[in-house]
Amino acid sequence: MSLYIGIDVGGTTIKGIVLDVGGKLCLEDSIVTGAGEEIAVNAVTLINRMRNAVKGEYAGVGIGCAGAIDSENGSVVFAGNLKLKNFPLAKIISEKTGLPAKITNDANAAALGEARFGAGKEYTDSVLVTLGTGVGGGIVIGGKLFEGNKSVGAELGHMVIEFGGNKCSCGRRGCFEAYSSATALIKRTKWAMEEDPGSEMWNTYTSETVSGKTAFEYAETDIAASEVVDWYIKYLACGLINIANVIRPQVIMLGGGVSGQRERLTAPLQAIIDRETFASHFAPVKITTATLGSSAGAYGAAALLMD
Amino acid sequence: MSLYIGIDVGGTTIKGIVLDVGGKLCLEDSIVTGAGEEIAVNAVTLINRMRNAVKGEYAGVGIGCAGAIDSENGSVVFAGNLKLKNFPLAKIISEKTGLPAKITNDANAAALGEARFGAGKEYTDSVLVTLGTGVGGGIVIGGKLFEGNKSVGAELGHMVIEFGGNKCSCGRRGCFEAYSSATALIKRTKWAMEEDPGSEMWNTYTSETVSGKTAFEYAETDIAASEVVDWYIKYLACGLINIANVIRPQVIMLGGGVSGQRERLTAPLQAIIDRETFASHFAPVKITTATLGSSAGAYGAAALLMD
Repeated sequence: MSLYIGIDVGGTTIKGIVLDVGGKLCLEDSIVTGAGEEIAVNAVTLINRMRNAVKGEYAGVGIGCAGAIDSENGSVVFAGNLKLKNFPLAKIISEKTGLPAKITNDANAAALGEARFGAGKEYTDSVLVTLGTGVGGGIVIGGKLFEGNKSVGAELGHMVIEFGGNKCSCGRRGCFEAYSSATALIKRTKWAMEEDPGSEMWNTYTSETVSGKTAFEYAETDIAASEVVDWYIKYLACGLINIANVIRPQVIMLGGGVSGQRERLTAPLQAIIDRETFASHFAPVKITTATLGSSAGAYGAAALLMD
Repeated sequence: MSLYIGIDVGGTTIKGIVLDVGGKLCLEDSIVTGAGEEIAVNAVTLINRMRNAVKGEYAGVGIGCAGAIDSENGSVVFAGNLKLKNFPLAKIISEKTGLPAKITNDANAAALGEARFGAGKEYTDSVLVTLGTGVGGGIVIGGKLFEGNKSVGAELGHMVIEFGGNKCSCGRRGCFEAYSSATALIKRTKWAMEEDPGSEMWNTYTSETVSGKTAFEYAETDIAASEVVDWYIKYLACGLINIANVIRPQVIMLGGGVSGQRERLTAPLQAIIDRETFASHFAPVKITTATLGSSAGAYGAAALLMD
C-alpha cells in the first residue's frame, strides 16, 4: 500500500508526517530548519529517517514551504526568513530521495490539509483563513488547490476591505489583514484600553501583556472589551463575505491563534454571513474552525501527491 | 463538422449565434425575449430558425441567461426581469430541440466568450469585469468557467472595498459596484458639477444629461472632471487589485459602457496594478478591454458545449 510523506518547512522547524493512502497518520517527526541550501539537506535527512521508521512503498514527497513558491516549477522563488531565492527545493528533494516531489506554499498546504483531512473533509470547495500574525489562507476547489497564475493567487489577507484604511504590513492600506490578524486585534485592544482607563481589562493586563485573547476574555463584563470584539467580528465578517461572494466555497474554516475563540467567533460570524451574503439561503457558506492545528500544512503537503 | 449554438437571454432580446468547432461565426440572429414560460418557446423558435439557415450537425445549445442560474441543474433559480423562478430552461430547450443544452448566467457566459474568442484568447486564466449599470463579470480558470458552489460565486461587483462606504444596489455598503459602475461614475460626476459651478462640464451638460463619458471628455481641461476620473480610476484599481491578489488571472478584461474609454482607462490602471499588486513582476496581470461587445454572452454560451 502506498505511503505519502508531507513536510512543512517553517521558520524554525521542518515538520514531517507519513500518511497511508487512506490519509491515516503513520508517523510524525521533525528537524531543525536551518537556512539556505542547508534546508534541503535537513529535509532529506528527515525524509530518510521517516522512511526507515515506517517501511513501505512510498508514492512521493509533498512540501509546504513559507515564502513565494512557484509550484509548477517546484521552486522557492523567495523566502526571506529561510534565506532562499530561486531555489529548486522540490527538484533537489526528488533527486536525493528518488521520489516524486511537489511543493506549494505553507498556507496553501494548510488549506489542502484541512480540506482533505480536517474541517473541510465533507466538502469539495473550501477556504482556509488563518488569523495569526497576518491573515493567510488558501482555496480548495473540487478537492484541488486553487493557486492562481504562478501560484500567486489566494492572497486573501491582501484584499482591501477599507479603501485608504489601516496600514498593512504589505505597505498598502485597508487590507483584510490590517483588521483581522491577531496583530490588528491586539493593536485595537491596546487602543481601547488606553481610551478607557476604567476598562476591566486593566485589572489583569497592561498594554505590554495584552494578547489576542484579552478582549474576548472580558467581552461579557466590560463595554470597552465588548466593543473591541464587535469591531473585530464586523471586519472579519466583511472579509469572509467577500470570499463567499467571489469564491462561494461550501465552507470557510478559520485557523490561527484567534480561531481558538471557537463559537465566540463562529456563532456571530455565521449570523452575519447568512444575513449579508448574496444568495446565502440557496448556497450557504458554513463558518467553522480548523481542526488540524499546526499539523495542517504537513497533511496538505502529503495530499499534494494524492491526485 | 460540428456546429454550436449559443443564445444570450437578455431583458428584451434573445441573441443567437452559430459557431463552427473552430469558433468561426456562421450566423447571428435574434428574437424578442418575452416573459415567463414564453421565453422557452421563443428561444426554441430562434434555435430552429438558425438550424434551418445553417445546415449541419449540431453538437448542442449553450444558454447565457440573466438572473441567478443553477448551471448544474440547468435551471433559472430566479430572474425578476424575465419573470422566471425555478424554471428548467436548459431541460426544456434540450427536450424541444433534441440537442444537449447547458446554461450559465449571462455575466459568466460573457466572461467565457471573451476568454475563448475575445480579449482573453491567448490566456488560460482570465477575469471579465463589466462596468455598466452594475459591476458584473466572470472568472475563467484553465479555460473553464469558475462559478463557485451552485454557480453563485464570481459576484465580483459585491466585494466590499470600502467598509461602511457608499450604498450599493444590493442593500449593503461599500461594494466595488458602488464605486466602479457607470451608475457610480455618473453620480460622482453630478456631485462634482454641483460642487463646482465653474466646471467646464456645465458648458455642454446639465445634471440631467451627464453620462459616464462626461468626466473623461473634460478631464484634460477641467480640474473637477479630472478629479472625478482620478477618483474613479483609484477605486476601480482597488477592486482589480483585489481580484488579482485573490484569483491572479493572467489578464483582466474590462467590458461594459465605461470600457469604451479604452487606453484612458487601461493605461493608468495598468500602472497602478503593476505597482501595487502582490508579486506583479513575477506574475503580471494584464489590463485590457473586452473585444466582443454585446455578442460576448452568445459566444460564451456556445463555448459551454465545447469541452
